[in-house]
Amino acid sequence: MRFVVIGGDAAGMSAASRAKRNRPDMEVTVLEQTRDVSYSACGMPYNIAEPDRELEDLVVRQAHVFREKQGIDLRTGHQVRRIDRILKKVSGKGPEGSEFEVPYDQLLIAMGASPIFPDLPGFHQPGVLGLKSLEDGRRIKAYIRSQKVRKVVIIGMGYIALEMCEALRARGIEVDMVKPRPVFLPWMNGKLSTLVKAHVEEHGVGMYLGQEIKGIEKAGDILKVICSDSVLEGHMVLVAIGVKANSLLAEEAGLELGPSGAISVDKSLRTSDEDIFAAGDCADAFHVVTGQKTWIPLALRANRAGWAVADNVTGKGVEVEGVAGTAVFKVFDLQVARSGLSVKEAEEHGFEPAEMVIEGRSRAHAHPGSTSIHVQMVGDMKSGRLLGGQLVGKEGAAHRVNAIAIALHQGMSVEAFSRCDLAYAPPFSPVWDPMLTAANQLVKRLS
Amino acid sequence: MRFVVIGGDAAGMSAASRAKRNRPDMEVTVLEQTRDVSYSACGMPYNIAEPDRELEDLVVRQAHVFREKQGIDLRTGHQVRRIDRILKKVSGKGPEGSEFEVPYDQLLIAMGASPIFPDLPGFHQPGVLGLKSLEDGRRIKAYIRSQKVRKVVIIGMGYIALEMCEALRARGIEVDMVKPRPVFLPWMNGKLSTLVKAHVEEHGVGMYLGQEIKGIEKAGDILKVICSDSVLEGHMVLVAIGVKANSLLAEEAGLELGPSGAISVDKSLRTSDEDIFAAGDCADAFHVVTGQKTWIPLALRANRAGWAVADNVTGKGVEVEGVAGTAVFKVFDLQVARSGLSVKEAEEHGFEPAEMVIEGRSRAHAHPGSTSIHVQMVGDMKSGRLLGGQLVGKEGAAHRVNAIAIALHQGMSVEAFSRCDLAYAPPFSPVWDPMLTAANQLVKRLS
Repeated sequence: MRFVVIGGDAAGMSAASRAKRNRPDMEVTVLEQTRDVSYSACGMPYNIAEPDRELEDLVVRQAHVFREKQGIDLRTGHQVRRIDRILKKVSGKGPEGSEFEVPYDQLLIAMGASPIFPDLPGFHQPGVLGLKSLEDGRRIKAYIRSQKVRKVVIIGMGYIALEMCEALRARGIEVDMVKPRPVFLPWMNGKLSTLVKAHVEEHGVGMYLGQEIKGIEKAGDILKVICSDSVLEGHMVLVAIGVKANSLLAEEAGLELGPSGAISVDKSLRTSDEDIFAAGDCADAFHVVTGQKTWIPLALRANRAGWAVADNVTGKGVEVEGVAGTAVFKVFDLQVARSGLSVKEAEEHGFEPAEMVIEGRSRAHAHPGSTSIHVQMVGDMKSGRLLGGQLVGKEGAAHRVNAIAIALHQGMSVEAFSRCDLAYAPPFSPVWDPMLTAANQLVKRLS
Repeated sequence: MRFVVIGGDAAGMSAASRAKRNRPDMEVTVLEQTRDVSYSACGMPYNIAEPDRELEDLVVRQAHVFREKQGIDLRTGHQVRRIDRILKKVSGKGPEGSEFEVPYDQLLIAMGASPIFPDLPGFHQPGVLGLKSLEDGRRIKAYIRSQKVRKVVIIGMGYIALEMCEALRARGIEVDMVKPRPVFLPWMNGKLSTLVKAHVEEHGVGMYLGQEIKGIEKAGDILKVICSDSVLEGHMVLVAIGVKANSLLAEEAGLELGPSGAISVDKSLRTSDEDIFAAGDCADAFHVVTGQKTWIPLALRANRAGWAVADNVTGKGVEVEGVAGTAVFKVFDLQVARSGLSVKEAEEHGFEPAEMVIEGRSRAHAHPGSTSIHVQMVGDMKSGRLLGGQLVGKEGAAHRVNAIAIALHQGMSVEAFSRCDLAYAPPFSPVWDPMLTAANQLVKRLS
């Protein structure tokens, strides 16, 4: 019984390790195209913020541990280029141009996602960089050092763009951010996104929205990002407009794709070929609120899907719960969190959403150090169900969102949420937690 | 229609305000024995920590606002001494020894709770103080100032005792803590409570457990707490061994009492007399995990019960959801949180509890500033249901517990909890939130 895994990061290594734990006699082979396995990709912006730290600090487990301690046949520098579903084998290029071929009984595609590079002039030149792999991180860090980068233009304003903005500012590097669409954090309630944008601007960052990007031109050591209304200059350009699932190999093998072009999988993580699984950022998932397919490439579900694949290839027959779209990020002093659907997403899925936004305090009345916290909640006018929530604040937003996530998994009504016994002590919350205040107000709007 | 409220703090003023909002024509009278209404009792330790702040900072709404803006007949300095259920009136002592009598159509008893003073020699002398009312807080602050208190003995080691310990240490006052029972935080998992105790000791606090207390003796400006094995000395003694429901008046009126001697109420907050309600710390409640009566005197449920009483006296007919026993406190740099049942409580209620304790990290692998966070979870071997959780850590414990609280309200299984999509970003959590790690481990033990 041979289990082959394409891709050695979160989903791939989770699956390989657990399969070997479940069935030590199983032959487990991992084929990873880079030299890196099992690292915390999400930690890269924070690592890049510190010039003296090595990217290697983000490696969770070294390759030799997987090989020697766990008995996994882990091959780095192996790029799979073809999946042969008839003969059940994968083939590709190994180190120094060698070719390889590996037969499988069961296969996992865990190839992740890649930064989207627009097909525009000047995007493929030195100093125009994306961030997804550890190698990307090394490249950015090396470029900043070797070129003495003092100014960066970031194209895109999503999580990674904002985390990188903070990282660069922490190193004293000037940052301008630019995006083609006119709306900042389009999934976010307008009042909340305005707060986040203002906070970023307070840190001296130029924010250029609604700027069609024409291309990048080089002039000496300066890269010029040519936009519809302006030209932004930097020593480096970071392209962070989003990622796309690495599903081309699967598509070429005739596997079905789902929304956003990710590999379509069922709740057992099986693709349209019953001997081939897909997990992590290259695969889609079910959303617990809509019940529909969704593509939300985040780390927890990748790890979890990896485990589930391992259980399935070793005969345990498990299904994964869907995702709630819970996400959090930090930008300068703000915590920004969400779970579930935005108003627009709710409308698109046939709900009749009503929304409530409240401004609360992070600590009790009269408690020193209290700051503002904004909570948005979305409920369904038809059923009373809680559909989503968003939080922005300097403290307590990141962990509070977990309560909303649990409620979404349970299909809880806004009213039931509003009646829950949440924690209160003056250093941590008002008597009525801001989430309860939002729920109390939203209940009135729903009834 | 006349609604009379005995007690002008959380439950009482919430009920009075909301009743008046619901039905502006209703005659609403509040009888409060002290001169203070509507203040944040839980904020007192933090106020006492700062010599230059006034206790008045904790007043949420001034008496004149209730009177003039809200049209509530609010009478401070009015101590109710008798409830006449036949003639439907209350009577007592007003300011300067005057007597009063107020008829009611519907009555709310919201008299709160009082610190327990043991019936031992020397407990009723100057410098031996409890903390429940704002007047108690003023007395403590004045005593510290006038007597130049440099050392305090705290009898008791519960939430208030620990919060006061921190407050006094913040003022440079030495503190010894003593309690008769041998176990610190008896509701807490032993590993977690050991951590909390060690943390308190690291702040130079003497902790004397299992010390039978014989009495308090005065010698000059020193008060000596005479214990079985030792004598502890201080300029002041704070008695914080717990509180008891102020239910004597209700009992004398023939109303039924529930567990812990609190006034027994149904889900509409009605006592055994259908025209008399009770709410807040003097009344009991249902526990969502056990379905049984419980007495957990905390602020949120007092406010909520006050609202529900208002809705019921104004004809809306509402019931309150039970409590989950969610509580959090801070002691020095630690956040300590719980929701639901301890192992012992679970056993007492006929569950077959299994427990899991894990030590996780507050932030991601390799993220700077990461600290230890301990999570305990309790599940039922028979049903797989989540029964409770406890957290201790320097960050992220206080708000995480809300996720557990929501799950308890929903009767969620440990397995269902373990499958939820919780938030992850390196500054806030490992990929697997420590609660998920605990749940994952506990699932194995339960199956």
